[in-house]
Amino acid sequence: MAKAKGNLAIGQSGGPTVAINSSLCGVIQEALAHDEIGEIYGMFRGIQGLLSDQFIDLRRQSPDVIKGLRRTPSAALGTGRYKVTPRDHERILDVLKARNIRYVHYIGGNDSADTSLKLHKLAADAGYELHVIAVPKTVDNDLYGTDHCPGYPSAARFVATALRDTGRDTEAMGPASPVKILEIMGRNAGWLTAAAALAREEEGDPPHLVYVPERPVSVERLVDDVQRCYKEHEHVVIAMSEGAQEAPGKTLGEEYAPKEVDVFGHRMKGGVSDYVAALLRGRLGLKVRLDQPNYLQRSFMLCASPIDLEEAYRIGKKAVQEALTGRIEGMVTLTRDPGPEYHCSAGIASLEGIANREKKLPPGFMNEDGNWPTNAFLAYARPLLGEPWPPSSYVRLTKLFV
Amino acid sequence: MAKAKGNLAIGQSGGPTVAINSSLCGVIQEALAHDEIGEIYGMFRGIQGLLSDQFIDLRRQSPDVIKGLRRTPSAALGTGRYKVTPRDHERILDVLKARNIRYVHYIGGNDSADTSLKLHKLAADAGYELHVIAVPKTVDNDLYGTDHCPGYPSAARFVATALRDTGRDTEAMGPASPVKILEIMGRNAGWLTAAAALAREEEGDPPHLVYVPERPVSVERLVDDVQRCYKEHEHVVIAMSEGAQEAPGKTLGEEYAPKEVDVFGHRMKGGVSDYVAALLRGRLGLKVRLDQPNYLQRSFMLCASPIDLEEAYRIGKKAVQEALTGRIEGMVTLTRDPGPEYHCSAGIASLEGIANREKKLPPGFMNEDGNWPTNAFLAYARPLLGEPWPPSSYVRLTKLFV
Repeated sequence: MAKAKGNLAIGQSGGPTVAINSSLCGVIQEALAHDEIGEIYGMFRGIQGLLSDQFIDLRRQSPDVIKGLRRTPSAALGTGRYKVTPRDHERILDVLKARNIRYVHYIGGNDSADTSLKLHKLAADAGYELHVIAVPKTVDNDLYGTDHCPGYPSAARFVATALRDTGRDTEAMGPASPVKILEIMGRNAGWLTAAAALAREEEGDPPHLVYVPERPVSVERLVDDVQRCYKEHEHVVIAMSEGAQEAPGKTLGEEYAPKEVDVFGHRMKGGVSDYVAALLRGRLGLKVRLDQPNYLQRSFMLCASPIDLEEAYRIGKKAVQEALTGRIEGMVTLTRDPGPEYHCSAGIASLEGIANREKKLPPGFMNEDGNWPTNAFLAYARPLLGEPWPPSSYVRLTKLFV
Repeated sequence: MAKAKGNLAIGQSGGPTVAINSSLCGVIQEALAHDEIGEIYGMFRGIQGLLSDQFIDLRRQSPDVIKGLRRTPSAALGTGRYKVTPRDHERILDVLKARNIRYVHYIGGNDSADTSLKLHKLAADAGYELHVIAVPKTVDNDLYGTDHCPGYPSAARFVATALRDTGRDTEAMGPASPVKILEIMGRNAGWLTAAAALAREEEGDPPHLVYVPERPVSVERLVDDVQRCYKEHEHVVIAMSEGAQEAPGKTLGEEYAPKEVDVFGHRMKGGVSDYVAALLRGRLGLKVRLDQPNYLQRSFMLCASPIDLEEAYRIGKKAVQEALTGRIEGMVTLTRDPGPEYHCSAGIASLEGIANREKKLPPGFMNEDGNWPTNAFLAYARPLLGEPWPPSSYVRLTKLFV
């Protein structure tokens, strides 16, 4: 490694997904292919690993383990949610210099883009040559500058799969237990919730209603929606974002959220779905059931989108390539190519335009009533799930009564 | 159909699973093969379909649809939870006679076995020749007389898969968010919760603790267990039955269950997992997160056990065959053959010994401490998940710090 210009540090941050280890694999394999890169350090638990000088030696891992990362969910380096403060700046520079780290790749969402930008500025201000190329990752799909975020396609596939199956369950129960709410991640952005609509193959299939934070829906409107669907189908399946709102900035039922503390002094549980379930039971007298898969949405490898795993790998490699061309800051992006066949190209964008922003569902991706994604959204999201989708062909009996 | 001795009615009852349509397919295909059977009626929404004389014509369904039932989750005939009362007896007999129904197959769990037994007695008392052969189904696995219940293997596979993946997610979060509770179905029996232990491949893998209703655990013991695991691993993944107890007959934290009613007059949410989460936050000061996939456990087709789907199909056929041999009451059972290779044979048992009983996890299937299933349980449950299990090979980085 006599030619090595410097060492590389790679970290993972924020919530895990099924695809970020695939990005990690891309970074490592690409780094191994270039003599300009010396040591390959894995930050243990994100930026905290850098701050505490805890690095895993990635050169000494077996090639099979590196390869296996492409199909291992979660974050193999460990992750964290630490926010860098000015207090940490000196320490960061000390570690970077002591380790001769010249390349930093940070895999994460908005907060991680912000951390990457801070590292870049810190080094630039100190006159220390550092190439910081972030790698996007988030099931929320809320990063600017990229067609979509790796991690989102697989989470979307889990959500659509879960909705389809729990929808069949609810259909079978009929009027005996007619309302199902599937609670879906995304406190501020409805990308993942909207993906539930991909479960519908034929008119009348679940889901019947989809509510996202970007399109507030009044309590009256929500009750009317459910009542109408119940009359039509004798069961109602709702995809409900954990951040669904009744007015801009006002989460559904937030004034009814439990004010009591439990026996340990903590606020009692009660989110949007709990409120809506109570609302529908009270107003319509119907049994309402909840599925809250929570972290399964971002970790369920069996629902990984093949496209997602491949793209995540590709952008990991691209991040290293960009750093080696001399770029000193940026985030790898995906740009959808024109044409009927789905294909995305990897590009690069400045972190300045990405960090500390949030990309929400555009208005054209939800219908006027705010209860169903438009065809434009479906056309956007459908190819991301990859093939085979739907994963199998379900049947229904024809209702030939005798 | 000149030779037909009578018509057949088939129904599905209780909670759906991924495998009961496979049993339905077995019944229909077998019935189609025998001239003694005339019409094939599907009860619409269980026994209520019989009471309301609402039957779907199963002879007129397309063969592709019948075949497709083998890989369609939920209950294609619709299901219900209606309990037959003496008031209904006359009506039931009237419908059976008017339709010349001589064969009844009811697919379900304990309640359905009870309903089947009632139908048998009713017909016997009235001197009406009726063959009632029940088909077992329940993710709770709590029926007597059978090695296991169709539906359980697939739900167990979902639970083990979910635990494995959400366990990796928790491992990656480490001390930042170290405790995960996966809430698992089974209010009285711990079969499904115990299956979470199948996710562990190596010592130290999640889950770290498994709590079932049959083995009460004191609050102090539970807190100690979690603290010990946290010290050892920096994260703790718990498989928690929704019916876990702190003393025989006393659900964990039931005295703390919310007494308040919400704005609609309903009891506020708060089950075992909510209580334990609050307990651990309060006593250990650790972040605790919950996954509550609820009905996904019984409907997630992607996790179907191939063995389960095959056995469910086989017992459907067997039910018809038994009825045609002249048997007038019974439930089809599965008996595990001796030998190192897993194989179950379909048999038959009297409903008298099955209905209104509940088969719980035997003492030898949980360890002394009541927090981990024994090897005997693992040996029992492991083959039911079928191959390929685990569904893929995950890797871990070696912690070579530099």
